[in-house]
Amino acid sequence: MRMYDLIEKKKLGMVLSNDEINYFIKDYTEGMIPDYQVSALLMAIYFMGMNEEETLALTLAMAKSGDMLDLSKINGIKVDKHSTGGVGDKTTLVIAPMVAALGIPVAKMSGRGLGHTGGTIDKLESFDGFSTKVDKEIFIKNVNNIKIAIAGQTANLAPADKKLYALRDVTATVDNISLIASSIMSKKIASGSNAIVLDVKTGSGAFMKKEEDSFKLAEEMVKIGNGLDRDTTAIISDMDQPLGNAVGNSLEVIEAIETLKGNGPEDLMDLCLTLGSHMVKAAGKAETAEEGRKLLEETIVKGTALEKLKELVDAQGGNKLFVDDTDMFRKTKIIQPVKTNDSGYISHIEADEIGIASMILGGGRETKDSIIDFSVGIVIDKKVGAKVSKGDVLAYIHGNDQEKIKIAEEKVLSAYEFTEEKPKERKFIKGIITKHGIITI
Amino acid sequence: MRMYDLIEKKKLGMVLSNDEINYFIKDYTEGMIPDYQVSALLMAIYFMGMNEEETLALTLAMAKSGDMLDLSKINGIKVDKHSTGGVGDKTTLVIAPMVAALGIPVAKMSGRGLGHTGGTIDKLESFDGFSTKVDKEIFIKNVNNIKIAIAGQTANLAPADKKLYALRDVTATVDNISLIASSIMSKKIASGSNAIVLDVKTGSGAFMKKEEDSFKLAEEMVKIGNGLDRDTTAIISDMDQPLGNAVGNSLEVIEAIETLKGNGPEDLMDLCLTLGSHMVKAAGKAETAEEGRKLLEETIVKGTALEKLKELVDAQGGNKLFVDDTDMFRKTKIIQPVKTNDSGYISHIEADEIGIASMILGGGRETKDSIIDFSVGIVIDKKVGAKVSKGDVLAYIHGNDQEKIKIAEEKVLSAYEFTEEKPKERKFIKGIITKHGIITI
Repeated sequence: MRMYDLIEKKKLGMVLSNDEINYFIKDYTEGMIPDYQVSALLMAIYFMGMNEEETLALTLAMAKSGDMLDLSKINGIKVDKHSTGGVGDKTTLVIAPMVAALGIPVAKMSGRGLGHTGGTIDKLESFDGFSTKVDKEIFIKNVNNIKIAIAGQTANLAPADKKLYALRDVTATVDNISLIASSIMSKKIASGSNAIVLDVKTGSGAFMKKEEDSFKLAEEMVKIGNGLDRDTTAIISDMDQPLGNAVGNSLEVIEAIETLKGNGPEDLMDLCLTLGSHMVKAAGKAETAEEGRKLLEETIVKGTALEKLKELVDAQGGNKLFVDDTDMFRKTKIIQPVKTNDSGYISHIEADEIGIASMILGGGRETKDSIIDFSVGIVIDKKVGAKVSKGDVLAYIHGNDQEKIKIAEEKVLSAYEFTEEKPKERKFIKGIITKHGIITI
Repeated sequence: MRMYDLIEKKKLGMVLSNDEINYFIKDYTEGMIPDYQVSALLMAIYFMGMNEEETLALTLAMAKSGDMLDLSKINGIKVDKHSTGGVGDKTTLVIAPMVAALGIPVAKMSGRGLGHTGGTIDKLESFDGFSTKVDKEIFIKNVNNIKIAIAGQTANLAPADKKLYALRDVTATVDNISLIASSIMSKKIASGSNAIVLDVKTGSGAFMKKEEDSFKLAEEMVKIGNGLDRDTTAIISDMDQPLGNAVGNSLEVIEAIETLKGNGPEDLMDLCLTLGSHMVKAAGKAETAEEGRKLLEETIVKGTALEKLKELVDAQGGNKLFVDDTDMFRKTKIIQPVKTNDSGYISHIEADEIGIASMILGGGRETKDSIIDFSVGIVIDKKVGAKVSKGDVLAYIHGNDQEKIKIAEEKVLSAYEFTEEKPKERKFIKGIITKHGIITI
């Protein structure tokens, strides 16, 4: 088999066989095929596309390129959750304890943040002592005992995807639905769960800006997941402003704790219950998502979800007292209000700008080796739809460096847009895609 | 400027600016842009194309990436000839002396052969002592004195093209008309002549198999040449069988000498006169191509072209007695007739197969470092249209190794196709493209 022939075939719009895709991924991962041939193939794929069979083959080949996690020693149906990434997205911190509180095993591998979107692993490390480097045996033991464990991704999870993504990133071949979908799904497939619930963000703060594209991506991922025998569902949710109010590591953890106490922001609670309800259904603990939602609501009312979070923190070496007393999280020296010079209704908050403001304060990684300040971030006070007058507080900046706060303040101010008329309310959950089709809400 | 943005622009079908193309070629030649970005761009160009302005810019940027030959010290209008390559193509050996005999300066840079198509430089080296490594001063002095000099291409002629072509060759991005045309023309532009006559081959033995594609390529090159102020004309000629009868270095030289003596094969003579007539016209020595053709015919009749070849051989250290007595060229130990097992009319001779047979005998380079046996080759005895019976001789193999001859014989036999009906005569010169448009003959 020659890589040249694969490029030529795809260039002419032909379908690559399973064997050809396996050869390409295996030899590329092993360094036997040069980048310049792969980037030519990727560009040909951009123009000619891949059919469902090719996309499945690519996903599986990438999943198998590294460690395939074996979760068979965990009792019950393992359900994974994945978000395409957004600003202020602390859903895992809320959903995982809720779901685990219902006795559903949550064996979660999470990533670190890069750029202006945070990672669950970083957020959890806001708890003093919390370790996400968990030995595999202990990881499985914890899930069997307390139904929950959250660990950092193994370095060898779908290395082919890692290599391919890095190449796509510098050759303008990222924006192809099949490639995006197979990239995300390869890691999910390698992570070993039986069912997957996907949170596909849409809007200005999402990777997919257009609702149409987000639906397409969601459909593609649901097809891949179910095609590879994972019961897969996708929720398309709005990211036209940050999710919830807090952006920044410990600030988000505190908001997640408040949510588990029943005091969370409405959008965050709604998304967590929606995603969670499909996880509960997939795990076989409820006949319908509606029923699953009720069960989850009870974990909040009864406090079992909050209790589960404490167990998780405790089991992984963190100080669980932080959950009861969130004042124990490290605080910034300065909390500075951001006041508006405009008047009118808030029509839009550019989520990326808020994320970047948080990164500038020290809350995100500009490069892989940046050290994070867990305490900094933004707490939004006024969200889309609110009416404000000049001088009103829009948000609070938590920072430790006056100069950085000044730049962050400008970012936050520039993220806000105003209109004279009250903006039409946007639907927050745009649709749900199951293996049976699309449910538009 | 970032290469990423150029890829993205072209991917979206946008036009690259002059500056962007110059940046890309300059930085790629200097090793500042990695192959994997360039191959992605090339594939995007394959799908989205380049407009005339982009193609001109690319050609000029590649021409300027290395040495730009300065022929200004040569008096008169310098006319270059280029062939897209074919089997048995010894036109330069005939045309250059004819044209020079009319007082038109021929300052020719030629290449070596690779694979199964020969190079003018190799053919000339069949003359004992002939050197194509000519000092630049002497090269110019010779052209001014005797109107003719033929030298090997400088190693630094359009290095960007060399690098780009090598990459296209392994990434399935060769077959784009703009890229092919700019690759050829960049070298012609760098070679410094004022006018260019192109011989674009079409048919099974040509790079372009389809007549339509050959016309497109010819049009594109004529556009580029004239767009860059070189008076450029293209002749589209048939390559459905080898040109003339001889294939192999000294065998082709002998055929060229015979042609200059007026005893050449009809197709070769016709092509040389057609190409040459446009060179004479471009040089301002004739008002029309027809007039130019008459002048060239006179150089054959009067023997001035043959005399010019002797002057060339002598000036570059070769033994000019070879021209008068072609028996002085090194001969092979064996000349073996190839006899047909078929009967009927010859309908087609696969030129590539004959070229490969010659290469197998030792007449061509399988790799850049192969050493050539100048004496070997094939002399075709029966061409398309001839009627043959079983046992008739089709061709003669000149070889030095019985085993190689056996393989070559099979190749030659498999190159011939027969029909019962006399095949319709194919037009040999398919068309002429000048800056004023297409002349279909």
